[in-house]
Amino acid sequence: MTANPYDFLDILADAAAEAVMPHFRANIGVENKLAEEFDPVTIADKAVEEAIRALIHKHFPDHGILGEEFDNVALDAEHVWILDPIDGTRAFISGLPTWGTLIGHKVNGRAKFGMMSQPFTAERYFGDGKSSQYKGPGGPQNLMTRGCKSLSDATLFTTSPHQFSKSKIDRFKAIEQQVKLSRYGMDCYAYCMVARGSVDLVIEDGLEAYDIAALIPIIEGAGGRVTTWDGGNAVDGGSIVACGDPSLHEQVLKLLSD
Amino acid sequence: MTANPYDFLDILADAAAEAVMPHFRANIGVENKLAEEFDPVTIADKAVEEAIRALIHKHFPDHGILGEEFDNVALDAEHVWILDPIDGTRAFISGLPTWGTLIGHKVNGRAKFGMMSQPFTAERYFGDGKSSQYKGPGGPQNLMTRGCKSLSDATLFTTSPHQFSKSKIDRFKAIEQQVKLSRYGMDCYAYCMVARGSVDLVIEDGLEAYDIAALIPIIEGAGGRVTTWDGGNAVDGGSIVACGDPSLHEQVLKLLSD
Repeated sequence: MTANPYDFLDILADAAAEAVMPHFRANIGVENKLAEEFDPVTIADKAVEEAIRALIHKHFPDHGILGEEFDNVALDAEHVWILDPIDGTRAFISGLPTWGTLIGHKVNGRAKFGMMSQPFTAERYFGDGKSSQYKGPGGPQNLMTRGCKSLSDATLFTTSPHQFSKSKIDRFKAIEQQVKLSRYGMDCYAYCMVARGSVDLVIEDGLEAYDIAALIPIIEGAGGRVTTWDGGNAVDGGSIVACGDPSLHEQVLKLLSD
Repeated sequence: MTANPYDFLDILADAAAEAVMPHFRANIGVENKLAEEFDPVTIADKAVEEAIRALIHKHFPDHGILGEEFDNVALDAEHVWILDPIDGTRAFISGLPTWGTLIGHKVNGRAKFGMMSQPFTAERYFGDGKSSQYKGPGGPQNLMTRGCKSLSDATLFTTSPHQFSKSKIDRFKAIEQQVKLSRYGMDCYAYCMVARGSVDLVIEDGLEAYDIAALIPIIEGAGGRVTTWDGGNAVDGGSIVACGDPSLHEQVLKLLSD
């Protein structure tokens, strides 16, 4: 990789924005990926991932790629890119600005750096696990999570309460009842709000690697923690908990494992 | 009123944006308005409403004002402004761009024109019941709702499933089970997505006049319908249903009144 991977992330995010923006709020048709469930995949989703893959192939032909829309490539490579062209497709097709393009990069199985790009609001959040930055309206900023020692002070987000498996919904609800504020519906955007210190906690279930890998280094570089519910490496997805305050993360892990 | 009320709405929205933006994502403190419930009121909320009220008093001293944060003025006047300085305070304090400043105007008890201004994304939605417009990223557009004849094709939003009174939650859930896509958490932003044809239906309960008055002429000017659950004038709030397609609105009213 280059000395500064952010430069290449910006190139990828520029290409993604160019591919996606003609389709946002264009009232395009929506295909159903799964017949039994509403899982929208748009022309935009595929166009974005193709644009990003083409640049990775050109600049880093020996890197692997794991993406939502197309076949995996060389997942056993040292460097693997993890792509979700439009995280939050339901927000996207509803015209809301709370979706994002997620571009993650793992090295030897660990999330190394990542970016969330929201081209309608012109926001980019990126991090490498050591530090994290924001670019967008209001000007560039270093991202820092906020302290929150107690669930009773916490703002919690989850994309939908309907996502939890039966064995997990009760544990989620037990935590939800203790927080100050619980809100639904934000996908990747909520994780970026953890990184910038506006939200304390995201708890989700059933995530894919491409839903979370890019977000781990952003939150951890801002001072937070992201793991599976049992405290493991979150890079492959599953049941995920992300906290701005590492001490709150410890408390939540105990409650989730009970 | 002036021949083109939109010019004055833009002046109000400019003043509101100037008052609110220094506080957005500034990690400001949050007061609790009600001790028993989390109802955040920020310094920003009050600053925005003061800025708008000062301009109305100066230009239209005989108009009434109904606002969220301060005492009502001359509600029996022919012209009454209806203000929610930050609709979606929970989104606001969580750093999300899905809140808005709502500026409504009613004449002899009917919602006449209104605006939703989102200053972080630089979006404005406004209408007078006959036509509606958007200004913001992507350039100005006339707003038009989309056709949706059946609940099975509809995208439904509600701010939170926890807002419904016990007597109403079952009727909401019966409709939610029939729609293609149900999402939570968007406040005024969801209504603007109805006006622009990205969302079909918003159903809510327990709204105040200032939560809805500004949005009625925006949706109806774009071709939709906004009423109470029993088909009445929505301008004073209560249980609200907003539809992009008037024929879907008829169907939903029947289901809500059962």
